[in-house]
Amino acid sequence: MAGSTFGTIFKITTWGESHGKALGVVVDGCPAGLPLCEEDIQRYLDRRKPGTSSITTPRKEDDLVEILSGVFEGRTTGTPISLVVRNTSQISRDYSEIASYYRPGHADYTFDAKYGFRDYRGGGRSSGRETIGRVAAGAIACKLLEQLGVSVHAYTRSIGPIQADLTHFDAEAILSTRTAMPDRAADEKAVAYLEQARENSDSVGGCMECLVTGVPAGIGDPVFEKLDANLAKAIMSIGAVKAVEIGDGTSVSARYGSQNNDPFRVNDGIVTKSTNHAGGILGGISDGDTVLIRAHVKPTPSIYQPQQTINKTGEEIDIQIKGRHDPIIVPRAVVVMECMTALTVLDAILLNMSARLDNIVSFYRK
Amino acid sequence: MAGSTFGTIFKITTWGESHGKALGVVVDGCPAGLPLCEEDIQRYLDRRKPGTSSITTPRKEDDLVEILSGVFEGRTTGTPISLVVRNTSQISRDYSEIASYYRPGHADYTFDAKYGFRDYRGGGRSSGRETIGRVAAGAIACKLLEQLGVSVHAYTRSIGPIQADLTHFDAEAILSTRTAMPDRAADEKAVAYLEQARENSDSVGGCMECLVTGVPAGIGDPVFEKLDANLAKAIMSIGAVKAVEIGDGTSVSARYGSQNNDPFRVNDGIVTKSTNHAGGILGGISDGDTVLIRAHVKPTPSIYQPQQTINKTGEEIDIQIKGRHDPIIVPRAVVVMECMTALTVLDAILLNMSARLDNIVSFYRK
Amino acid sequence: MAGSTFGTIFKITTWGESHGKALGVVVDGCPAGLPLCEEDIQRYLDRRKPGTSSITTPRKEDDLVEILSGVFEGRTTGTPISLVVRNTSQISRDYSEIASYYRPGHADYTFDAKYGFRDYRGGGRSSGRETIGRVAAGAIACKLLEQLGVSVHAYTRSIGPIQADLTHFDAEAILSTRTAMPDRAADEKAVAYLEQARENSDSVGGCMECLVTGVPAGIGDPVFEKLDANLAKAIMSIGAVKAVEIGDGTSVSARYGSQNNDPFRVNDGIVTKSTNHAGGILGGISDGDTVLIRAHVKPTPSIYQPQQTINKTGEEIDIQIKGRHDPIIVPRAVVVMECMTALTVLDAILLNMSARLDNIVSFYRK
Amino acid sequence: MAGSTFGTIFKITTWGESHGKALGVVVDGCPAGLPLCEEDIQRYLDRRKPGTSSITTPRKEDDLVEILSGVFEGRTTGTPISLVVRNTSQISRDYSEIASYYRPGHADYTFDAKYGFRDYRGGGRSSGRETIGRVAAGAIACKLLEQLGVSVHAYTRSIGPIQADLTHFDAEAILSTRTAMPDRAADEKAVAYLEQARENSDSVGGCMECLVTGVPAGIGDPVFEKLDANLAKAIMSIGAVKAVEIGDGTSVSARYGSQNNDPFRVNDGIVTKSTNHAGGILGGISDGDTVLIRAHVKPTPSIYQPQQTINKTGEEIDIQIKGRHDPIIVPRAVVVMECMTALTVLDAILLNMSARLDNIVSFYRK
Repeated sequence: MAGSTFGTIFKITTWGESHGKALGVVVDGCPAGLPLCEEDIQRYLDRRKPGTSSITTPRKEDDLVEILSGVFEGRTTGTPISLVVRNTSQISRDYSEIASYYRPGHADYTFDAKYGFRDYRGGGRSSGRETIGRVAAGAIACKLLEQLGVSVHAYTRSIGPIQADLTHFDAEAILSTRTAMPDRAADEKAVAYLEQARENSDSVGGCMECLVTGVPAGIGDPVFEKLDANLAKAIMSIGAVKAVEIGDGTSVSARYGSQNNDPFRVNDGIVTKSTNHAGGILGGISDGDTVLIRAHVKPTPSIYQPQQTINKTGEEIDIQIKGRHDPIIVPRAVVVMECMTALTVLDAILLNMSARLDNIVSFYRK
Repeated sequence: MAGSTFGTIFKITTWGESHGKALGVVVDGCPAGLPLCEEDIQRYLDRRKPGTSSITTPRKEDDLVEILSGVFEGRTTGTPISLVVRNTSQISRDYSEIASYYRPGHADYTFDAKYGFRDYRGGGRSSGRETIGRVAAGAIACKLLEQLGVSVHAYTRSIGPIQADLTHFDAEAILSTRTAMPDRAADEKAVAYLEQARENSDSVGGCMECLVTGVPAGIGDPVFEKLDANLAKAIMSIGAVKAVEIGDGTSVSARYGSQNNDPFRVNDGIVTKSTNHAGGILGGISDGDTVLIRAHVKPTPSIYQPQQTINKTGEEIDIQIKGRHDPIIVPRAVVVMECMTALTVLDAILLNMSARLDNIVSFYRK
Repeated sequence: MAGSTFGTIFKITTWGESHGKALGVVVDGCPAGLPLCEEDIQRYLDRRKPGTSSITTPRKEDDLVEILSGVFEGRTTGTPISLVVRNTSQISRDYSEIASYYRPGHADYTFDAKYGFRDYRGGGRSSGRETIGRVAAGAIACKLLEQLGVSVHAYTRSIGPIQADLTHFDAEAILSTRTAMPDRAADEKAVAYLEQARENSDSVGGCMECLVTGVPAGIGDPVFEKLDANLAKAIMSIGAVKAVEIGDGTSVSARYGSQNNDPFRVNDGIVTKSTNHAGGILGGISDGDTVLIRAHVKPTPSIYQPQQTINKTGEEIDIQIKGRHDPIIVPRAVVVMECMTALTVLDAILLNMSARLDNIVSFYRK
Repeated sequence: MAGSTFGTIFKITTWGESHGKALGVVVDGCPAGLPLCEEDIQRYLDRRKPGTSSITTPRKEDDLVEILSGVFEGRTTGTPISLVVRNTSQISRDYSEIASYYRPGHADYTFDAKYGFRDYRGGGRSSGRETIGRVAAGAIACKLLEQLGVSVHAYTRSIGPIQADLTHFDAEAILSTRTAMPDRAADEKAVAYLEQARENSDSVGGCMECLVTGVPAGIGDPVFEKLDANLAKAIMSIGAVKAVEIGDGTSVSARYGSQNNDPFRVNDGIVTKSTNHAGGILGGISDGDTVLIRAHVKPTPSIYQPQQTINKTGEEIDIQIKGRHDPIIVPRAVVVMECMTALTVLDAILLNMSARLDNIVSFYRK
C-alpha cells in the first residue's frame, strides 16, 4: 500500500530508487508566502552527501535539486512543491551477483517476500539514497520553522563506544567534523576507531540526537497523535534506526519518581521546569522546554568480511560483498534525523492552530 | 485536531475521560465473520484492572464492557463495533486543589496550554483509564490475529533495577504474578523493591517487552509506513513510555556490523536467520522471524513526597499529592502494549493484501 | 475497510444499526471552549424524527441523545465527544422473511455480496437510522459555525413534480410544514400528492437544497480537496441521494459562457458577484458568496406493491413488503443534508487556517 | 492544506502549474508486477491534448511523459511511480494584465483570497493542465483494472443543446470524433454549434458520461466511503464540473418508487437486475451491474466578449480576454473523467480485499 506519504497538513510524498533516473519529493500543504530557492534546499542535501574523507564512501554524488513547481516569484504559492534530483553518477555495472542472493541485514529478502521481485541495483528503494526526498522536504520545513522561532539541530552523540562530551557542546563542530560530533576530541577518537573497523573489513553503529528549541507549549494531540509518538514514527522510519528515546529515554525505567519528575518553575513570567528529564513533552504535548530525541543506528550491514546467507533458490551460500560502502551510517543520517524531526514538529504546529474556539473566532473575525 | 483515531483499514477511535460518564472505542474496518462476544474483550480488560495487591491501586474498577453495534448473531458484520465501559466507581470528591495547580510529570500544564482549560478530575483524558478503549479494541485484533496464526505476548522485563531472567521464560507467570514478569523469582524481588518504594512515598519505573510470532514475511510498507515505525508510534503513544526499541535496540549503536548482521539460513525449506538481532524486521518489513519490541516506562508521576510546582496563576508552590496511585505503571501497561502491538501488526497485515498484482488477480478471478 | 469516519480536523466516526442496542458518533477534533449541552443536539435529532402525520412513518422513536465524554463544565474540552442514542422502540418481530430475500432498491444484496451475511433487522447499518450519528455530530458543527457567522439551512425544493416557489421563500415554513418546504402552498399540494401515492401503495422521490451563508472567501483546497468535491462526497454519501449539484448545476451544460460567468463587483469595499451561477465556489474555493448545493433523492424503495426479486438461494420470487415506511425520504433527510454540509464546510474552514505563512507567524508570535 | 493527494491504497499526488517547469504525479501503492511503459501512459495523455481542429485550442503541447521511478525491468515494483511531463511550449509572454484583475468564472480571485497571491501565468495550478497528473495516474489504474476484467469508458453525452443518440452507441466514434461523442451525426451538429459559438466570441457547456463494466458486486464501503460518494468527489474535483449524477440521477426525484426500483433477476446463475436505474450501486456498494456516472460541465469561462470584473485594487473594470482557449471543455475532459473514475473504482476494489475474515484467512493460510 501507499507508504511514501508523511504528514497531515504539511504532507510530503517521496519517491525514487538508488539507481533509477531520479529521486524526489512532492511537498503538499506548504503555506503560501515562504521565500524559497534551490540553494535553501541544496544546503541540506549537501550535508548528506558522501564526502571525500576515508570514513565516507568515495562515490561522487552531486545530488543537485531542481524545483519544478509550487514556487512563483521566489515564494511558495501554497500548491505542491515538486523537487527532483537526477541520478547522474550511478555507474552501470554488473548486478547479477547481488540480484541472486539476500544480503544479511539488508531488505533484499523482505522486499522479495513482499513484492515478488525487487530493483536490486544499489538497494533500490531501500537504499540510503531514499532519504534525499526526506531531506529536500525537511529543508523547507526547517526554513519555515525558523520564521516561527523554532530551531532543529541534530548531531552524532556516539560512534561505537566513543561518546561525544556534551558538557562542552561545540555546535560549530557538527558541520565541520567528519563525524558530525559536537566535540572535536571525540571526533578524532571516533575517526581512529572507524579506520580500525575499516581495516578489519567491518562497520560500526552509533547514536544521534536532535534538539528542538522554541517549540511553543501545547503542540501535539492526545492520544495517538502525541508529539513523541509521531517523532518516534518519523525517526524509526529512517533506515537502520533500531531505537528511539525521548528525553532521558531508557534510563527512566530504572528510576524513582522522585528522581524523574521535573518541578515546574516560573522565570520572568514564563513557565519553565528546573530539570528536563521529560525531553520537553508531557502527555504527548510539548511543555515549552527543549524537545530532545535520541536514535540508535545499527552498523552498516554491507561489510567486506565473508558472510553466510542464502540465494534466491534457497541454497545456503557464502558471500563477500563488493562495492563502496560507508563504514558507518550516522554522520550522514544526522541531517535526515533533523529533517524528519522538523517535518513532524511543523505538522503538529500547523494542526494545533484549530485547537481552541477562541483562536478560531479571532482568526476569522479579525 | 483529531488525535484519537489509529489505523488505516482496521481503524479504532477511542474516547472518554477518567471520571466522565463512560469510556469506549469504535472499531471500524473489522472484517466480517469473526465470532465475538463481550467475554472475549472482558478477558483483556480484566488484565488492566487494578488488583488487590499492595502494588496496585486499591480502587475498585469493574470496567464491564458492552458491545453496542457491529456484531450480529455472534459474529462481526464488517460495520463499526462500538464498545462502551461505564464509569461506575468514580467517587465524587473535591478536585478544587488539583484543579488549581500543575502536577509535575503529568499533562495538567500541557493540556491547559493547548486547550485553555482541562477536565482535571482524575487526569481527564490523560488518565491511564484512557487505555480502556485501546485494550478493548486490541482484544478484537488479538482474536483475529489468532485466526491467522499470529500470537502477541507482552510481559514485564524489569522493574527498577530488577531484571526478569528470560533464559527460563515462564510464560504462565506473566498472567499470575503481580508484576507480569515471566520469572517468579524476579517477581518476588520486584515486589519487595516496590514495597520499599511505597514506604518511601516514591514510585518506580520499568521496562516491558512484546513478542509477536507467526507474522508472515512481507508485512510493513516502505518508507514511512514501515512496520517498526508504526510500532514505535503505537507504543510511544502509550502514556509514560519514553523509549522504544526493536530487536536489540539501543545496543546496536556500540556494535560492529559483523556482530549485528543476522545470517540467513534455510530450515526445512523455510527461510530463517541464525540470530535475530533485527527483531524480525528488515527495511521496515517483517522477515518471518519473531518481532520483538521493548518499551521503557517512567515511574508513576504521582508520588506522595512533597514536590515543587506552580499553580494556575503562576506562583511557585509546594504540593503533596493525595489519592490512590499505583507505585508502578508497567504491570498494568503490559496488556496495553500487547494490544497496541496487535492493532499495528493486524492493520499492516490487512494492508499487505494488495501488494502484488498476481494476488489481486487471483483474489478477484477465483 | 473503515468507512465510517468523515473529516480531517473535525473528524466524526458514526456507528450503529437500525435494530441494535444503540447508535452514535464520536466527534474528535472539536475545538475546545464551545458551550455544549444535550439540548443543542436534541433539537437537530428531533428534526429527523418520524412525526405523527400521515406522510411519515407512525413509528415512535424518541432518540434521546446522551453526551458521554468530551464536555466538562458545559464546554467542549478538545477531546473526543461521544454521543449515544439508545434504541428503545425497536420491536422484536419476525425477520425470517426479510432475511431470506433481497428487497429491490435496498442494500440487502450488496451487503451480502460484500460481507457474506448481514444484520437484516430493519436494514441494519444501511437503514436511515444510520444518520442519527451524522445529525448529532452536525448539530455541533452548526453550533460552532454560528460562532464564525456561518449559517447552514436546508429545505425541500420539490416532491415528485411539485416544486416549492423559492421567490417567496418562507424560511419559517421549513420547520413547521410536514414536507420541510419553504412554501406553504406547495406543501399542501405535495401532501396531497403523497397521500395519493400512499393510496397507490407507492412512494415518491424529491429534491432538497442547502444554502450556506457567511463562508469567508478562500475555503477549500485545490485540487482534490475542493470545497465542492467534498460537499459532493458528503451529500452523495447520504442514502438514496443519486445526484448532487453546485450552484446552477446541471443547467450549466446547456449554456453559453456569456450566460454563465458571474461578473465580479465591489459593494462597500466587499467583493461580490452580480450573479451567483457558480454557487459560491470557483476553482473549488469559496468566493464569499452563498454556497448552494442541491440533491436529488430517489423514492423510498420500500413500497407495498408486489415486486419481483430473488431470494438468497438464487430463485426468482414475488414479494410484498410489510412494515411501516415513509412514502418519501426527503423531509426527514433535509436535516441530514444540513448537517453533512456543516461538517464539510467547518472542516475546510479549520484546514484553511494554515494556508498562509503570515497568518501562522502572527498566530504563534502574537 | 495538502489537497493534491487522492486515494487510500492506490494513492496519487499531483503537482504542477500551467506555465511552470513541469507537471506530474506520484503514484504510490500501485501493486507490484504490472507491466508498464511510457507508451501505456502517453496514449491517455494524447487524448487530452489540444488537437488541430477548430474547436480545440491551436496551442501545441507535446506533453511527453517520462517515468522516473517505480518501474524495473518493465514491471511496477510496488514502490512510488513518479511521472513527469516537462512544459516545453509555454511561451514567455506578458502576463501583467491578467495578473492585475480577476477573470469571471475563473479561480483568480479565490486563489488570491486564500493564499494572498497566485501564479497567474495561464491559470497556474487552477489551469486545465493540472489534469495531466490525473490522466497519467489514471492510465495506470485503467491498465490494472483491465487485468481484473474491469473496463472504464467515458464519452461526451451532450454539447449545449445537442444530445448524442445513445441508442446507436458508436464506441469507435468516441476516440475519432472531435467532440468525443459516440454518435457521428450528433458530432457534426455539435461542431457546427461550436463554430457558431466561436464566431459569437462565446463558449459552450456540455455533459459527459462514464460507464464501468465488470465491477464485482461488493465494492464500496458504508457509510462515508460509499462507491458513489467517492465517485462524486472524484468527478466534482475536475475543474468546471458543476453536477454529478449516478444512474438515473436527477430524474429520480420526480419518480414513483414502483418506477425506480430495479427488480433482481438471475441469469445463468448470475445475479442481475432487469433495469439499472440505480447505476450499478445500491447502498453505496456495487451490485455487479454497469456503474454509470454523469457530469455536467460549465462553459469555458474564458470568452472573448467584453466582460465586467474588478481588479486587484478593488476597482470595477471592463476587460476583454485574449489568448487561445477552447470554446468547450468537455471533449478534452472526457479522458479525465475516465481516469478519475478508474482511480476511484480501483482503490475501492483494493480496499475490499480485507472485508471478510474467510478471505483473509485463505489469503494468508494458502
